[in-house]
Amino acid sequence: MDEQQIKQIVESVVGRIEDKQTSITLEQAKYLIEQTEKRAKEVGVNAVIAVCNAGGNPVAVHCMDDSYLASYDIAVQKAYTAVALQMPTIQLKKLSQPGGSLYGIQNTNQGRIVIFGGGEPLVHSGWVIGGFGVSGGTEEQDTALAEYGKQIAKEAFSWQ
Amino acid sequence: MDEQQIKQIVESVVGRIEDKQTSITLEQAKYLIEQTEKRAKEVGVNAVIAVCNAGGNPVAVHCMDDSYLASYDIAVQKAYTAVALQMPTIQLKKLSQPGGSLYGIQNTNQGRIVIFGGGEPLVHSGWVIGGFGVSGGTEEQDTALAEYGKQIAKEAFSWQ
Amino acid sequence: MDEQQIKQIVESVVGRIEDKQTSITLEQAKYLIEQTEKRAKEVGVNAVIAVCNAGGNPVAVHCMDDSYLASYDIAVQKAYTAVALQMPTIQLKKLSQPGGSLYGIQNTNQGRIVIFGGGEPLVHSGWVIGGFGVSGGTEEQDTALAEYGKQIAKEAFSWQ
Amino acid sequence: MDEQQIKQIVESVVGRIEDKQTSITLEQAKYLIEQTEKRAKEVGVNAVIAVCNAGGNPVAVHCMDDSYLASYDIAVQKAYTAVALQMPTIQLKKLSQPGGSLYGIQNTNQGRIVIFGGGEPLVHSGWVIGGFGVSGGTEEQDTALAEYGKQIAKEAFSWQ
Repeated sequence: MDEQQIKQIVESVVGRIEDKQTSITLEQAKYLIEQTEKRAKEVGVNAVIAVCNAGGNPVAVHCMDDSYLASYDIAVQKAYTAVALQMPTIQLKKLSQPGGSLYGIQNTNQGRIVIFGGGEPLVHSGWVIGGFGVSGGTEEQDTALAEYGKQIAKEAFSWQ
Repeated sequence: MDEQQIKQIVESVVGRIEDKQTSITLEQAKYLIEQTEKRAKEVGVNAVIAVCNAGGNPVAVHCMDDSYLASYDIAVQKAYTAVALQMPTIQLKKLSQPGGSLYGIQNTNQGRIVIFGGGEPLVHSGWVIGGFGVSGGTEEQDTALAEYGKQIAKEAFSWQ
Repeated sequence: MDEQQIKQIVESVVGRIEDKQTSITLEQAKYLIEQTEKRAKEVGVNAVIAVCNAGGNPVAVHCMDDSYLASYDIAVQKAYTAVALQMPTIQLKKLSQPGGSLYGIQNTNQGRIVIFGGGEPLVHSGWVIGGFGVSGGTEEQDTALAEYGKQIAKEAFSWQ
Repeated sequence: MDEQQIKQIVESVVGRIEDKQTSITLEQAKYLIEQTEKRAKEVGVNAVIAVCNAGGNPVAVHCMDDSYLASYDIAVQKAYTAVALQMPTIQLKKLSQPGGSLYGIQNTNQGRIVIFGGGEPLVHSGWVIGGFGVSGGTEEQDTALAEYGKQIAKEAFSWQ
């Protein structure tokens, strides 16, 4: 490990301490959900949008009018999965196909692991401080909306 | 959006309000089940036949004599799935195969999502007002019986 | 055991063999449910009415319009409980109060044991061949409706 | 058809839908939650506040910062219970005590029935069109906050 690497790690830790943010707040969660909801309306998707905190516990969930009944559980668990495995669910999709290194992971956590796109970890200074889950459109739409929310978070809250 | 499209949307909404029917009744559910039961007898299937309402909650379930024990849960959840995802379960089958966009969805909703044929949404004026589920025969037979029930609903109740 | 008692036992077994009925049929279940539904309407209760067979598995369930969402599970499990413990649930109520001999039984069977009135075993020639469950009114109403259904069964099917 | 005409038609249809509202909307749910959240802050409670629709399915859930982890399930199920049994959970509390007519009901619906205060049905024109659940304070505080939300709904949406 060289000096530069050590510096980065120390800065990331110090930055996090200065921010004192280890988990997403309700205020932030609502902002992300509402911005993503606007985008969902633009692209014609009735989505369920969920945010969980660093502990994988829900912070806020909104079900747009006429969204699928099934989408509630799916959105909440996409947010959970993104935190629980610290990766986008679209990335987990590849690993969990038959023959893949994590094939079967959808059965290991009491139905809480979602293996298709639409879940994104929310990252601040190198730490996962929350999860974002979207369900209601095609997998492409859900993935794009989740990435949109993640981007909003980065910009609005000056997360690095 | 052209004038014709707008007209259709408005008419669909108005039609639904005029009918005042947003969810299937017990009387309608029993009629669908009994007609489908007759058909099941003709084709030699001992089926469980279930109807749920627009909220995914069961309205009526009949288990024909000598039907499979397993078919009760399957029929009830097929009806639920058809409402919860607003599509026939035979269509969901394609999306949820390995590599598909919804592969793994059978694990996301506490075992309530069925990914093989035999569940059909019941649609009135463009709105899903119930779900119909059949289990007991081959997948082809269950799918055909569910479609039969859906067709009966359309004709008997003048649903569009 | 005297001659009279032995005669009764033999007659009960022979009677059952002659009838060849070891479990309630869908036709019988529907009849019971519909007669009880009529009575429920008369007394102003929107009930869920369920019948299960000798194996504790559901045969038919009807949810009257505007019945409670919670009543579906309750009616189905009342029918189950009546078969599983071979007694009316109103009788189980006494045994399962704090200090009672079966206190805690509501926790031993994955939430399938109901300990208040409205479930009745359906008995033929001394054998439990099904369970009847009603939920939707007060406990007194549910209990009376379940007993009504049990009486109907006895008369309509010449059960002893 | 010009824009003005379309607007008039849509407004008339929307007006009629509002008159015949059978389930709560996301917009309404968010309003109730946010008003109740303000009140919770005033009384020093970090609450989870949940709204479900007429089918018992969640519409929106907010977890105030530093609310209890356990409160998420409790608030969601309080909202569900209030719809599923069409009564405030504080009223169910009395019925489900040892010796009461519904003692044991907390075990009959897969853990979805909450038997202490903080859940209120949302009623419009005599119909239950949603449920409201609050968890995080003492039972008295949760009950008061749930009643506050119910009152807000009545006033803000002109529900009778």
